[in-house]
Amino acid sequence: MTLAGPVARLNELIRGIELAILTTVRPDSSLHSCPMAVQSADGTGSFWFITNANTEKVEAVRAVQRVNLCFTAPAANRYVSVSGFCELIRDHIKAKELWHSDYKSWFPGGLEDPDLILMKIVVYQAEYWDPARARMVSLEGFDQTAIT
Amino acid sequence: MTLAGPVARLNELIRGIELAILTTVRPDSSLHSCPMAVQSADGTGSFWFITNANTEKVEAVRAVQRVNLCFTAPAANRYVSVSGFCELIRDHIKAKELWHSDYKSWFPGGLEDPDLILMKIVVYQAEYWDPARARMVSLEGFDQTAIT
Repeated sequence: MTLAGPVARLNELIRGIELAILTTVRPDSSLHSCPMAVQSADGTGSFWFITNANTEKVEAVRAVQRVNLCFTAPAANRYVSVSGFCELIRDHIKAKELWHSDYKSWFPGGLEDPDLILMKIVVYQAEYWDPARARMVSLEGFDQTAIT
Repeated sequence: MTLAGPVARLNELIRGIELAILTTVRPDSSLHSCPMAVQSADGTGSFWFITNANTEKVEAVRAVQRVNLCFTAPAANRYVSVSGFCELIRDHIKAKELWHSDYKSWFPGGLEDPDLILMKIVVYQAEYWDPARARMVSLEGFDQTAIT
């Protein structure tokens, strides 16, 4: 079972959307959301983010790995909901790949900054808004990758 | 403790945003989101929606009342995250107040349609994106209303 088809489809659905809404579950079970600059999913169906280890969203993910990423483009009537598992990873090589000079203001220590951590969100379900049916419909192909 | 101030502040923050992203927790613990047409919060700090009782989001809320509503206006750099408790209510008078002729295609039976149910989302935490600090900050005044 390859993910190439579903990932390509997903990336097509979110094309041009630069910010996603990340929703996490806090330790008190409340749901919290915040905007995140986002790139395409990689070949394994994962989204990567550079973030600060001392943030509420990272604290939330330490307790509950389930997250949602929502991509919206209201003018185009496009909405994509991604259910994922979030892993927290320290990986210098991957961080370097994701690094952008804008991050310097966040991480004065650059790639060596001890506060820098990576979030890897593995997609295991994706849905998109179908205007014709006026409801969210499943994007086939991801369910098989549910984390075991 | 009055909510008038915080509610007015919240409504100012979301002014002009017609669609919110509702995130719910499914019975399998996964997080799911979908767009919802939204109006201002009422005087008690609650958002009301007319919806269909036979939907995944209603099924989710029956199991887990915690939800998130996220309001986004990327062009204006505005993001508001609302943590809430969702109640499912059947109330003919309130439904009539919320009713709009567009709903007729969803509920052929009109206000008497047995599938029609109301979602009342009671805000108990709200945050908004502060561009100056480049992070979400709390909108004071709602924490006191945590559901007891």
